[in-house]
Amino acid sequence: MKNISLLGATGSIGTQTLDIIRNNPEQFKLKAFSAGRNLDLTRKIISEFQPEFVSVQKKEDYEILKAELAGNINISYGEDGLTETAVYAHSDTVVNAVLGSVGLYPTLQAIKERKTIAIANKETLVTAGHLVMQAAKENQVALLPVDSEHSAIFQCLQGENEKNIESLILTASGGSFRDKTRAELTNVTVKEALNHPNWSMGAKITIDSATMMNKGLEVIEAHWLFNIPFDKIKVVQHRESIIHSMVEFHDSSIKAQLGTPDMRVPIQYALTYPDRLELPSAEKLNLAQIGKLHFKEMDFDRFYCLKLAYEAGSAGGTMPTVLNAANEAAVTAFLDGKITFLQIDELIENSLERHNVMKHPDLETIKAVDKETREYVHSLI
Amino acid sequence: MKNISLLGATGSIGTQTLDIIRNNPEQFKLKAFSAGRNLDLTRKIISEFQPEFVSVQKKEDYEILKAELAGNINISYGEDGLTETAVYAHSDTVVNAVLGSVGLYPTLQAIKERKTIAIANKETLVTAGHLVMQAAKENQVALLPVDSEHSAIFQCLQGENEKNIESLILTASGGSFRDKTRAELTNVTVKEALNHPNWSMGAKITIDSATMMNKGLEVIEAHWLFNIPFDKIKVVQHRESIIHSMVEFHDSSIKAQLGTPDMRVPIQYALTYPDRLELPSAEKLNLAQIGKLHFKEMDFDRFYCLKLAYEAGSAGGTMPTVLNAANEAAVTAFLDGKITFLQIDELIENSLERHNVMKHPDLETIKAVDKETREYVHSLI
Repeated sequence: MKNISLLGATGSIGTQTLDIIRNNPEQFKLKAFSAGRNLDLTRKIISEFQPEFVSVQKKEDYEILKAELAGNINISYGEDGLTETAVYAHSDTVVNAVLGSVGLYPTLQAIKERKTIAIANKETLVTAGHLVMQAAKENQVALLPVDSEHSAIFQCLQGENEKNIESLILTASGGSFRDKTRAELTNVTVKEALNHPNWSMGAKITIDSATMMNKGLEVIEAHWLFNIPFDKIKVVQHRESIIHSMVEFHDSSIKAQLGTPDMRVPIQYALTYPDRLELPSAEKLNLAQIGKLHFKEMDFDRFYCLKLAYEAGSAGGTMPTVLNAANEAAVTAFLDGKITFLQIDELIENSLERHNVMKHPDLETIKAVDKETREYVHSLI
Repeated sequence: MKNISLLGATGSIGTQTLDIIRNNPEQFKLKAFSAGRNLDLTRKIISEFQPEFVSVQKKEDYEILKAELAGNINISYGEDGLTETAVYAHSDTVVNAVLGSVGLYPTLQAIKERKTIAIANKETLVTAGHLVMQAAKENQVALLPVDSEHSAIFQCLQGENEKNIESLILTASGGSFRDKTRAELTNVTVKEALNHPNWSMGAKITIDSATMMNKGLEVIEAHWLFNIPFDKIKVVQHRESIIHSMVEFHDSSIKAQLGTPDMRVPIQYALTYPDRLELPSAEKLNLAQIGKLHFKEMDFDRFYCLKLAYEAGSAGGTMPTVLNAANEAAVTAFLDGKITFLQIDELIENSLERHNVMKHPDLETIKAVDKETREYVHSLI
């Protein structure tokens, strides 16, 4: 029995994690969770899973729930509440499915408490990968990827020796606008950007897929998770999202992990690792029915954010923090209708250009750079 | 340092095995080998690798070599010589790359001597899989697949638990005649049949690829190697031969092994397992350059031999022995210009239909059924 703290329970990864816990009551128990601002769903999760601890984003929601639940459950809120969920004493496993760099501090605290971390929150690794990986190493904590690409690589690496890795090959669907030229992106709308061809995901990651920043963040995430230099991490465009990613070994053998686009597969693998459990409701892949899989070189001029991410990742230090913070702020502004789609790239590039990289930043420095970058982006809008 | 006995050194797998030994003198030493009738190549191998023991197929070749080598090396010949090579005392690893069921007895003897077996000789497993696997289990001997499909499955199974396997998915290029209808096969020539689209292999396996019997033999081989029932072994047509095979797990995750068609990759993996070694001369796979991978349902009416193989495999007992012996005899007859391409299927089907299956046959029974089947096929020609 694994006792789980779920950060970000009301989001896309969160609700799919709940689905897995629901279907495997012998294996998993939800002990604690954090939610955003969806109070109805929060109430439903409490009622169904009967956790011991819950945290919400806002104080006013906390007050409402506190009155309703009348002491039957421990409640908290805000960033402190998120961290309390992550370190909850009766949990041994933390699923970090929050969005953005807000997941960093709770993750570091959970690692110190020696919880196993299933990480779907890529911004945490992008913004402070060196701190997270060092803490995981010092505390001998397993960091299990939930992203479909990283889960694919992780699955392919089972039974293999890291020294034999030639390269990691991440696949990219190309996102909502893969068939548009850069010129055609000038007037695209938020609604069009949110229409991902293969995956049903949250708004932020869907926009990140359209700009290809999502793949850029994944490249940086892969660098940290698997300790592989950037020149050995490749991206290939693969429109069907059937091959989730690959590992090339130095004998030229390649292993790939495939499946229909269903995030429950990587989520469940992170929870059952190193074992697997049946997932009868997942749609089986039928390659003959699909007929063809397509592959294409990535165009770094067309997908400019990917180029920026490789550059920021290779520069290291505080540069990926700037990349991530500028991207979070720019995507929010795009979703709010304040900037155009192509301005996302521009704002990120401007932020990176003006930043003087600091090597080996500590948590305080990262927080400060993150905050300062967001303010700079807001000043430009 | 692994000391190797190589059975079938002058064939396609044999010479590629020598290539790997040549390129890794720190890892591998050729201690003994068996050759067919190519005396020139046999002399070259002796001269280059300086083995301690060699065996040739025919007594006259043995006499010639014996006179030439004047006691500097131990020489033998025939089936006894093949077995002596397999059990050669200074070898710890046997690469069985001979063709046909003649490889069975030497394999069983090598297993009894607790040699690690790298097996490229699929007929051995098809004709007497139950005996080979039982002997391997009793003697705690590793049986490492060399066939690209089985090596792919074996690689995908590293770090995984057998109980989680949902199915094995073998890929099939379709062979030389994949784009022909059955009617168009009536007058095809030996030369046309030998023109495999992807792999450069020996004559027998190339014909087996054209009839799809090769995939049928592989299905039976996979059944024994991985202990999986026939209804969980699938075949999908995949014309590029890039995905070498796949494993589907019960959580619906699929792992695949990919690469350019280069038999040295699976051969070397069998020799280095569980580690890998660099193979710099192998061509790297570039999926973007290839562009598309195609998949198609197998047509069991078109590829009738595959249907026969599934039936013989499922019937078990002596039935796969008949399948294999009839196929070996029929393919030889086709290569000799004595029968047409479509008569291969017919001769195999006739042989299977008249045979009364015997369950759990011992080695003597298998030998007798093998011999009797070949005689029956010859009587029909």
